[in-house]
Amino acid sequence: MGVVIPFEGSGEKQPSLDPLIALTLGDMVKVNEAILARAASHVELIPELAGHLINSGGKRIRPMLTVASARMCGARGDAHIKLATAVEFMHTATLLHDDVVDESDLRRGKKTARLIWGNQASVLVGDYLLGQAFKMMVETGSLEALRILANAAAVIAEGEVLQLSASHDTSTTEDAYMQVIGAKTAALFSAAAEVGAVVARRPKDEQAALESYGRNLGIAFQLVDDALDYSGKQALMGKSVGDDFREGKITLPVVLSYRRGSQEERNFWKRTLEEGNQTADDLLYAQKLIERHNAIADTVERARHYGAIARDALAIFPDSAHKSALAEAVDFCVARAY
Amino acid sequence: MGVVIPFEGSGEKQPSLDPLIALTLGDMVKVNEAILARAASHVELIPELAGHLINSGGKRIRPMLTVASARMCGARGDAHIKLATAVEFMHTATLLHDDVVDESDLRRGKKTARLIWGNQASVLVGDYLLGQAFKMMVETGSLEALRILANAAAVIAEGEVLQLSASHDTSTTEDAYMQVIGAKTAALFSAAAEVGAVVARRPKDEQAALESYGRNLGIAFQLVDDALDYSGKQALMGKSVGDDFREGKITLPVVLSYRRGSQEERNFWKRTLEEGNQTADDLLYAQKLIERHNAIADTVERARHYGAIARDALAIFPDSAHKSALAEAVDFCVARAY
Repeated sequence: MGVVIPFEGSGEKQPSLDPLIALTLGDMVKVNEAILARAASHVELIPELAGHLINSGGKRIRPMLTVASARMCGARGDAHIKLATAVEFMHTATLLHDDVVDESDLRRGKKTARLIWGNQASVLVGDYLLGQAFKMMVETGSLEALRILANAAAVIAEGEVLQLSASHDTSTTEDAYMQVIGAKTAALFSAAAEVGAVVARRPKDEQAALESYGRNLGIAFQLVDDALDYSGKQALMGKSVGDDFREGKITLPVVLSYRRGSQEERNFWKRTLEEGNQTADDLLYAQKLIERHNAIADTVERARHYGAIARDALAIFPDSAHKSALAEAVDFCVARAY
Repeated sequence: MGVVIPFEGSGEKQPSLDPLIALTLGDMVKVNEAILARAASHVELIPELAGHLINSGGKRIRPMLTVASARMCGARGDAHIKLATAVEFMHTATLLHDDVVDESDLRRGKKTARLIWGNQASVLVGDYLLGQAFKMMVETGSLEALRILANAAAVIAEGEVLQLSASHDTSTTEDAYMQVIGAKTAALFSAAAEVGAVVARRPKDEQAALESYGRNLGIAFQLVDDALDYSGKQALMGKSVGDDFREGKITLPVVLSYRRGSQEERNFWKRTLEEGNQTADDLLYAQKLIERHNAIADTVERARHYGAIARDALAIFPDSAHKSALAEAVDFCVARAY
């Protein structure tokens, strides 16, 4: 069901997601079943459209965080499965609406739902999945989990509006950028991890620790994603390079390069990202500027900083296989950049 | 704050919304305050866009149902205020997304938010309001109210997708049409009334009675709305006529006229609604066909049927001013058509 454990046995002991994937495999099979069951509807377009995105090879990192956090905290029963599924639906709904907002044609190399079924259907199926997500949360009977996830939903949307207001604005500051990714990405990572402690009825300090773990991991994850979009490494992984550039997104590598650059360079960023006026050679030149100002390395350095905080947040938990796997996930996330 | 009690003292004793408005006035002032407070955000675009729709002269009939149902059931405290506000936010979010889906330029005679701020902002602010709605529900601590409203959210979105699949399809059956308005309009009316019993901790039979009241009132309300869109009465009320026709919406007056019409008439409906190929005289001709087949009167007759069910649903409650006002609201809703 999309979850495979690679056993390539690389000798160099690179940090890996494999321990986390292996530990959560049984639960994630159930999450995948719940995803399929809850995206169902007698209105055919709904499972058809939702399935397109659900089966498009996402890593399911967010529900995996919920499941692993819950298990580390000793959760039993199936509440953590429902919450993990709800978290993935919230994420899927956000992607559907994002693609409409960004007018994207491709996601993970596949045509977006909005390109195949139209903006209208994407907006509405997103709304449907969000409704289903809240229904599942209610079924767990946990008002605290509901509070956390409802809050995340509002913060995510608020962050998206903020990003929209600031989009294509090359004078975006690093702080403003951090505010956007804190809302857009980190809010759901943090809620996903925090509710793991909630379903296991753990004390507030453990809940807060997982909230911090998730938030800082989310920030590190997004920073590395943004760095990879301009990096040759991405091409080696079979992913397209320069998507953010073509969409005129202002990410940290650009924020740093713009601030550190000459007036002529700033004019280049304004023309390509603010005015959206790009020629075939512009991406290569953008990469050259980013290289010149060390902006990839410094973006990854920022990610490393947040990754360290995420690791430390886990320190209060007794040692366990789940704790190690969650810590290694942070290292993996940062190591992707190299 | 938009809630005014007209004291025109019309002698002929037409059914009126005035008793309901008067009884809920104190609570609705609080609902209006909560709406303004909860649509706030440091991201300026959010209150700006949300305020545009919130202040555009909607009747707030849905939150009024929540408040009146709750009070009839003896509710105290402020949980019913929060739920009423959440209901209105769910409605507002639906309108924002609807206008994007329908590509509407006008709503209640005003430019739509999507025309002023764009589709992107409308989608995202809708998401934000939905998140805020769920946060307020959580604050009431009522899992049952959350269950009802989360379910309504999923059903509404499902109904919208169904409508999208069936849109511009003149061969839509009356049953299919009823299914769409059952989901699109009646689901929120029914949830709005039902949660009133829930916050007052009334037994299941009262909760079910209010669910039925709300659902049937919602259906009657929508049927009359659809009838008025083709009726001269609407023009007298200062509202535009023929919006549904211009948007190619298949409503019951059309469903009935299409089925009862000649082949030539069916070709007319296909050209104007399915193909969207309309000339200046087409609306007048559509009205003539609808008149010829008695489709307005029969649509209102259907509304009357559901209205009677709504009234009967209230019968189990002891007599009270709130009960009378809720019953009169049904009559008012149907009488609007004459």
